[in-house]
Formats: sequence, structure tokens, C-alpha cells
Amino acid sequence: MPRNGSNGAPTRGARRKARTRAALIEGARAVFARQGVDATAIAEITEAADVGFGSFYNHFASKEEIAEAVLTEVIAEQGAAVERLTAKLDDPAEVVSVAHRYFVRRARSDPDWARVLIRLDVSHRVASAALGAHARRDLERGIKAGRFEVGDRGVAFWSAGGALLAVMRGVLDGELRSGADVHHAENVLRMLGLPAAEAAEVARRPLPTMAVD
Amino acid sequence: MPRNGSNGAPTRGARRKARTRAALIEGARAVFARQGVDATAIAEITEAADVGFGSFYNHFASKEEIAEAVLTEVIAEQGAAVERLTAKLDDPAEVVSVAHRYFVRRARSDPDWARVLIRLDVSHRVASAALGAHARRDLERGIKAGRFEVGDRGVAFWSAGGALLAVMRGVLDGELRSGADVHHAENVLRMLGLPAAEAAEVARRPLPTMAVD
Repeated sequence: MPRNGSNGAPTRGARRKARTRAALIEGARAVFARQGVDATAIAEITEAADVGFGSFYNHFASKEEIAEAVLTEVIAEQGAAVERLTAKLDDPAEVVSVAHRYFVRRARSDPDWARVLIRLDVSHRVASAALGAHARRDLERGIKAGRFEVGDRGVAFWSAGGALLAVMRGVLDGELRSGADVHHAENVLRMLGLPAAEAAEVARRPLPTMAVD
Repeated sequence: MPRNGSNGAPTRGARRKARTRAALIEGARAVFARQGVDATAIAEITEAADVGFGSFYNHFASKEEIAEAVLTEVIAEQGAAVERLTAKLDDPAEVVSVAHRYFVRRARSDPDWARVLIRLDVSHRVASAALGAHARRDLERGIKAGRFEVGDRGVAFWSAGGALLAVMRGVLDGELRSGADVHHAENVLRMLGLPAAEAAEVARRPLPTMAVD
């Protein structure tokens, strides 16, 4: 939280601090994408960010902590991309299908990104913080529209998210064939109460134009 | 892999080595259950196992590595317990329901165990190695019996497993009410192609007598 000066605006020190933090995250993101989190030394991050080695620890306690910050940023961006992608869809079932398919396909088209997401112990927490609000809203919309029928909203939310992370991992590990996105979306829609035939139809609708693949 | 002597039996050295490893795992398991993995020092494990500190590193490279060994053992035991529990059930859908409900309830009744499972980065891999064979067989049985209908077996396997881990985590974090086991089982059965009414019925059948709860 940047400190504010007497006029309410952030002080110069606070602004500089925020800039350094942003540079560290940007640098880390580039280095992680190139060589993975494990193979990265903190000195490589500060070098990419063009800041002194010591200042890393003014912002982050460890490499894991900055990896979590990178992950949060990346997932939030992906969430925003899915928002744009689904903005014009009328059927809430299709919104959920497209969102899940997008993330599964992303695991295939951008494995570096997916590997950062999957390897962290914190995936569930971070993913749920960054995407939970979208996912819960999509769920509510489907229930309100009479499209979904779930016994317990919380369980449905966690099941769908956990299934997604696991399928992404299966894709990354090369255990799932292409088409996994459709089968996963179909599974999630069935879980949310769509009859099998409808789930099959919705999951196979052509995807809105998307940046990946 | 213990080395064998000229008569094919493990040598005395190999037997002693296996005993030490087993003692370390048993000691670690007791200490982890009491105070968690994070708060445990390797010296506490070797003390509980009654072996010298240095010999830890003849068997494990790190605390994470022994935690993984403990987890594998614990999950395999739970898998065997579910085997016994479901051995007399005729309906493959009920077998899957009971197995999933067992693990969700276990997260509530034995949070220490569940925390070890959930916190490790390796959960998916370890859980799938220890329980995957059971789960894949149960899935096949249901398909053969015409009870399940899935688009892709691999996706179904990963989705169900990922949903389970996530729901266990939701229970641990106190985000899900009791009854989560039933709702989760219902979701998984729907996902596997049971019509909603049948999924609801099977998931609510009384559980076979079980040790937990």
C-alpha cells in the first residue's frame, strides 16, 4: 500500500517504490517464461529489472513470493481476456464452456505460462483469488437463468476449478489428447446440471475468435 | 531397490537400510501429524525415528522428499480402506460415489492428514500414482456396465481427481458446509454421465460403515 503525502497523492518515495516493484515483476515474468521458476536465480530477476540485487528483498521475501505475484498478474490478465471473449454471449452455459475451453487450450499453446500456474503450491488460492469473482458470477447467472441446477454453489465452484487445474496439468504432462478442452467443458456443464445432450452441444459450439492457438 | 546377496535374499546391509528408511517414514509421519510439515526440523524426524541425524540424508534429499514418501504411504492406505469399503457394492456408480465421499469426509475428520495431502505441490502426481489405478478401474467398470458415458476417459479421470482435491481443500479452508461430500459425489456422477435424478439418488445412499466420522 503506497503511503500518501499531505495532499493525498502518493509521495515520491511511494511512487518510486511502486515502480521498482512493477519492474521486478515484469523482469521476473520474462525470466520465468524463458527458463522456468526453478532455474531462475534472484540475481537474474534484478538484472532483468535493472535494479540492485538488495532491493529485491524490500519487496519480496523469496522467489516463491515474486512467482506468486507474477502468477496473480498473469491470471488476472487471462481473466480479463476471457471477459472480452464472452462479453457478447447470451447463453450462460456457453460462457462457462468458453472460459474453461480457453484455459485448457492455453495450457497447450503456452505451456510456460501453464507450468508456472500448475507448479505452485498456491495455484488454488491464487487462481481462486484472481478468477473466483468471474467464476462465481458466471455460475450465478446460469442458475438465475434456469440453465444450471446445482446442489451447493460452493462445491460446484471448487469442483469446476479443481477439475480445470487438473485437466490443464494432464495436458501439460502430455497425458491428454487435443480435444481435451471440449470434453472438459462438457464435463463441467453436465456437473452444473445440463442434460448430457445439451452439454455436448454447447461444448462443441465454435469458439469465439481468440488470441491463443 | 534393496541389493540381494548371492542366494537371492536381501543382504543384511540392505535389510538394515530398509528398516532405517521405514523408521524414518514412521517417525516423520508422527511428527508431521502433530505439528505439520513446515514446523518440523529434520532433527525431530531422526529423533522420533531413533536414528542418527546424518543417516537421514542416506535416504532422503530433503524434508519435501520424505513428506512425499509419507504422503504416498498414507494415500495408499486410504486407497486400501476404500477398497474394503466398496468391495461388496454392485453398482459401479455407487463405488465411485462412496470413494469420493470417503475422501471428502476424511478432510473434515482428519484435517492433519488432509493438510499434508493438499499443501504439497506434488498432490496431483502422488495422488494419481497412489490412487490412479483404483480410480481408472472403477471408471472402466462403470463404462462397461453402461452406467457411465464419458467422452474421453483421460479427461474424466483428471477432472474427477482435480475436483476431489479442490473440494477437500475447500473443506479444509472452512469454505464448505457439511454435506459437501454428497454434493461432490453428485457432481462427479453427473460428470460421468448419470442423469441428474440418478446421480442425486446414488450420492445420497447411506454410506457403508466406515472408520472415519
